[in-house]
Amino acid sequence: MMKTVAIVGASGYAGAELCALLARHSGVELVALYSGPGGESRTFAEVHPSLAGRRGPITKPLNDVEGLARLHPNFVFLATPHESSAAMVPSLCDLGTRVIDLSGAFRLSSSEDYERWYGFVHPAPALLPHAVYGLTEWCDGSLADARLVANPGCYPTCALLALKPIIALLDQGIPVVCDAKSGTSGAGKQADVMFSFTELAGNFKAYNVGTHRHEPEIRRHSGLAGDTPFLFVTHLLPTVRGILSTIYVSFSRVVTSEELAQIYRGAYQDCPFVHIHPPGRLPEMKEVVGTPNAAIGFVVLRDGSCAVIVSVIDNLLKGAASQAVQNFNRMAGFSETEGLR
Amino acid sequence: MMKTVAIVGASGYAGAELCALLARHSGVELVALYSGPGGESRTFAEVHPSLAGRRGPITKPLNDVEGLARLHPNFVFLATPHESSAAMVPSLCDLGTRVIDLSGAFRLSSSEDYERWYGFVHPAPALLPHAVYGLTEWCDGSLADARLVANPGCYPTCALLALKPIIALLDQGIPVVCDAKSGTSGAGKQADVMFSFTELAGNFKAYNVGTHRHEPEIRRHSGLAGDTPFLFVTHLLPTVRGILSTIYVSFSRVVTSEELAQIYRGAYQDCPFVHIHPPGRLPEMKEVVGTPNAAIGFVVLRDGSCAVIVSVIDNLLKGAASQAVQNFNRMAGFSETEGLR
Amino acid sequence: MMKTVAIVGASGYAGAELCALLARHSGVELVALYSGPGGESRTFAEVHPSLAGRRGPITKPLNDVEGLARLHPNFVFLATPHESSAAMVPSLCDLGTRVIDLSGAFRLSSSEDYERWYGFVHPAPALLPHAVYGLTEWCDGSLADARLVANPGCYPTCALLALKPIIALLDQGIPVVCDAKSGTSGAGKQADVMFSFTELAGNFKAYNVGTHRHEPEIRRHSGLAGDTPFLFVTHLLPTVRGILSTIYVSFSRVVTSEELAQIYRGAYQDCPFVHIHPPGRLPEMKEVVGTPNAAIGFVVLRDGSCAVIVSVIDNLLKGAASQAVQNFNRMAGFSETEGLR
Amino acid sequence: MMKTVAIVGASGYAGAELCALLARHSGVELVALYSGPGGESRTFAEVHPSLAGRRGPITKPLNDVEGLARLHPNFVFLATPHESSAAMVPSLCDLGTRVIDLSGAFRLSSSEDYERWYGFVHPAPALLPHAVYGLTEWCDGSLADARLVANPGCYPTCALLALKPIIALLDQGIPVVCDAKSGTSGAGKQADVMFSFTELAGNFKAYNVGTHRHEPEIRRHSGLAGDTPFLFVTHLLPTVRGILSTIYVSFSRVVTSEELAQIYRGAYQDCPFVHIHPPGRLPEMKEVVGTPNAAIGFVVLRDGSCAVIVSVIDNLLKGAASQAVQNFNRMAGFSETEGLR
Repeated sequence: MMKTVAIVGASGYAGAELCALLARHSGVELVALYSGPGGESRTFAEVHPSLAGRRGPITKPLNDVEGLARLHPNFVFLATPHESSAAMVPSLCDLGTRVIDLSGAFRLSSSEDYERWYGFVHPAPALLPHAVYGLTEWCDGSLADARLVANPGCYPTCALLALKPIIALLDQGIPVVCDAKSGTSGAGKQADVMFSFTELAGNFKAYNVGTHRHEPEIRRHSGLAGDTPFLFVTHLLPTVRGILSTIYVSFSRVVTSEELAQIYRGAYQDCPFVHIHPPGRLPEMKEVVGTPNAAIGFVVLRDGSCAVIVSVIDNLLKGAASQAVQNFNRMAGFSETEGLR
Repeated sequence: MMKTVAIVGASGYAGAELCALLARHSGVELVALYSGPGGESRTFAEVHPSLAGRRGPITKPLNDVEGLARLHPNFVFLATPHESSAAMVPSLCDLGTRVIDLSGAFRLSSSEDYERWYGFVHPAPALLPHAVYGLTEWCDGSLADARLVANPGCYPTCALLALKPIIALLDQGIPVVCDAKSGTSGAGKQADVMFSFTELAGNFKAYNVGTHRHEPEIRRHSGLAGDTPFLFVTHLLPTVRGILSTIYVSFSRVVTSEELAQIYRGAYQDCPFVHIHPPGRLPEMKEVVGTPNAAIGFVVLRDGSCAVIVSVIDNLLKGAASQAVQNFNRMAGFSETEGLR
Repeated sequence: MMKTVAIVGASGYAGAELCALLARHSGVELVALYSGPGGESRTFAEVHPSLAGRRGPITKPLNDVEGLARLHPNFVFLATPHESSAAMVPSLCDLGTRVIDLSGAFRLSSSEDYERWYGFVHPAPALLPHAVYGLTEWCDGSLADARLVANPGCYPTCALLALKPIIALLDQGIPVVCDAKSGTSGAGKQADVMFSFTELAGNFKAYNVGTHRHEPEIRRHSGLAGDTPFLFVTHLLPTVRGILSTIYVSFSRVVTSEELAQIYRGAYQDCPFVHIHPPGRLPEMKEVVGTPNAAIGFVVLRDGSCAVIVSVIDNLLKGAASQAVQNFNRMAGFSETEGLR
Repeated sequence: MMKTVAIVGASGYAGAELCALLARHSGVELVALYSGPGGESRTFAEVHPSLAGRRGPITKPLNDVEGLARLHPNFVFLATPHESSAAMVPSLCDLGTRVIDLSGAFRLSSSEDYERWYGFVHPAPALLPHAVYGLTEWCDGSLADARLVANPGCYPTCALLALKPIIALLDQGIPVVCDAKSGTSGAGKQADVMFSFTELAGNFKAYNVGTHRHEPEIRRHSGLAGDTPFLFVTHLLPTVRGILSTIYVSFSRVVTSEELAQIYRGAYQDCPFVHIHPPGRLPEMKEVVGTPNAAIGFVVLRDGSCAVIVSVIDNLLKGAASQAVQNFNRMAGFSETEGLR
């Protein structure tokens, strides 16, 4: 059965991917696309020239949420800033619209977390415990009835897919290190000299060490103990798309390559978008760029006491838009791969 | 004899190159560096981290030109916006300071040109005829006594070095086509989504067709007749530095490769920074990036009736800072290569 | 009705795109994929990691054409070197298999052309007049019954889509200039220092001036008179995908922007993959990268006597694989957009 | 006093930098440049077009070491493959020529190490204990009389400058993680599809995990205990030059930012080419690209029990050629910065 769907934040990079995916989804009727407030209504080809020739509604500025509410779509995807999402979600939920929020507004557990990491007072803390964290492969049945899905961040998706299957093996007294590298599209559309081509081409740098908002998100959803040292550093690559995370773990007992392979394959055997490489063969970033796939590989070191795990995704797809569509498919009862192949 | 020198606009990309070149010039005492108005005083390492370890004065905000005037340096290099240069030059000239202006403020011949191409009313049109156009290789003796040098634009430098030697050979009834491609640093420090890494990486585009300010500059200084069709299109390359111009000309008589080679070699035989390739071997952009050199090559086509000429420079060096230092060397009586090798 | 299809040359860059497009085409049963001779059989995920998760046959080395012939597929796509295509096509045609050849082996008109431009003696010159040149938008009904389609080269596709509609307007006594720039994937998989990342990043250069094989192909299929000077220079961009051609033309009479717009829109009004920009707005390369689209824009100059036209395509899609699928769709009676949206 | 100097391996990337640096060194007479065996003699401009206009000897193929020996230069720089260096060094040392070897042939301590990590039988193991490991800042007086200097690898230079000052603070029971990222020029001139622009642009990957030759080099010269877990992963960045290493350490006691800053500043207070950033400010790669500098910054985490340290160098300069010239300057009694500013 067709679902009516609206996208808010359709003019950003993740929004463009949502438009492209949902415009070809056999079970979706796109009823409205919104950009931020102000500006003019524009066609697909004007907002996203690479979608020229695709059919879809006009993208209108979202000047008041009432207009969106009156449309009463079955589903709304929010690809909006954190505070905008936090402000819009309560009224959408009240109307019975099911919401998939790509921002970070419902990924942490308490309003204290939002004050500390996001720097704002959460307007709807009562909804936080009701949001389903949409790391699709680990959601079990919870998506079928979810009213509000917090779509995971790009770095957390990449790290959690690699970490969750092996948490029970870790020596949690020893730091878990996640050295993550992302393409520049993860920063969104930036009118800032620091994000200009001239500054970033030929460059590479770490940023937000110790203060990145994805750090508490990974910790919360990983299953790591509260006092396990988790060292997380994000870096900006001189390329547009993709995330590669290099993860260093120590085990509480000797682990073989075969055992690790079996654990990963077991964890993702029914998951169409997570690919496990043979032991010793690490995935490259480019093999997932432009796809809804994650790929994971590993090398066991020091006689089975440590391992290096490499996980890759496309930050705008598995790290944002395609995972949102995976979640939508499960919420609406479609095949998980619908619209994604 | 040492010359006292100040740089205004030291915090931009061309300014950084000027700082690097003049800080190691044996005949220069850098007495002051200025950024735009406002902000704080900063060291070399803070303004241009790659100059960490080089000695030089603090870069101060230029809040009033009086301060600069009181220093009374022998030379001032202006790497400032067009209108700022136009406003500062008269008082500097009055003081007897010799000025090398890297902006476009003194490259065209009339105030009408400035209204049409630059969109501002020139505040000192009486100085326009007195500015020496500093395409060093074509300046003859005029630099020795010059009080005000209009340092050429990056595209004009690249195009004019290729065009000037062969003007007499051209059939000027047929369009001269200059298809020019530049790295992104030519646009300066840009806080604009259009110049972000995410937008420009993997992209390539033409811009300002028919309206580029360097078009009248090339026409004026080339020796082309007023009614010769000159088609000039600039493009933005997904790289930081360098300009490559592909120039298409038709001759008024049959021209051989050997003849063309002889003309180019003759024109630049005493020029340490212009390199002529053998016939049929075209220069690549990278061979001049990071150097003060220009390189020119050509292929004669259609039995000697046409030719394709390729000219390359580093837009921030030969197209800006190193050419300014060449001009300074000639103005101050130093060897032309001083500080540039 | 389903068509059985084989791809020869499935492991190259254009082959990867063919695999991706045909694997999701509703009317295609992919019966065989071949790489070059030698080596081992490999899965999709091994040959093209970004296709991991897609279903398709194993890619086998093509050691003899007999094996392919015995399969007797309805269609064969050849993404093979010129000489390989020339050698395979006759026997495939004899068997009644319809062939879409992505190489240059059947694009020129005579065996002399092949000796001069390709440097080999064509083994099947008798087939040359029977090959349909598959610039889809200009094929009229000829594809419906075509047995052998010469799929156009990437540069010719880009140039011809821009040139063909306006040939009648040109002053053919004046050179038509096509300054073309391509991403590196156009060169195929290259084990050569010249094509290494270290050499090409930050670089830009012209190549094959006066000797490029696409020059006679453009001339032949453009409708330009035999003696019209056509100056064609190809350049290598520091990016992977896309072609942008800047074309300079002179008209035999005054032409207005509106007139030119009308001509282009008229020429492509029923063409789903060719987009005409409004006068004065030139397309950027990135708006077509990753799409089957071409986009064309123009600026009229010098009071209507000249124009600059910019045309962009993705070299691996509209310049190779997606145009091949467009041609296949017309040959097999499918909708032209089947498998391409 | 002028020193006569020869460079073997002058046509590679590190060789190009050596040529550029030594050609402008006031105490050097370049007497010979050699490329690998075979081929023709070529000028600077032919071997390294960006050196066009610089004076220097012709680069000749090195067909036999006898020729080089007869020249009897005071110093020879070897920018040659490991096995070539190992083979040439004994006879050069016998002649009394002082050697600076940029290969890995004399960096490890035993012939077992060479069999395990380099895969060859070392021809001169007796020289291994006599080679001075030329990490300049840590060489004390040993360079003054050194006959053979093993110039450090690029990754080891970057990692060791960051690690050596703080070894005494580490809890060596906990893994030290070094996540290192390098530009592509570190791989040298590669005629290999894997190193082509098309494969590497837009890509990022880890390589040689657990088998990289720089791992034992770092361990040997770091001062880490033999059983300290040292996890070292190298990655290939889509850029040409520069290395950034992100290093994760745990301390054996609480350490403050101020303390760490004091230790680093103390270690490098007299070192013109190592720059320590203020606590919390991490260096970017681009600030050292094209310079002989290293820059180091850090963030103390988890209440002083851990830290992230970021170290950056230009792999071809501080990681190869400029460090070799620093070593040469100390060996020959020149100022350490001679030829490097």
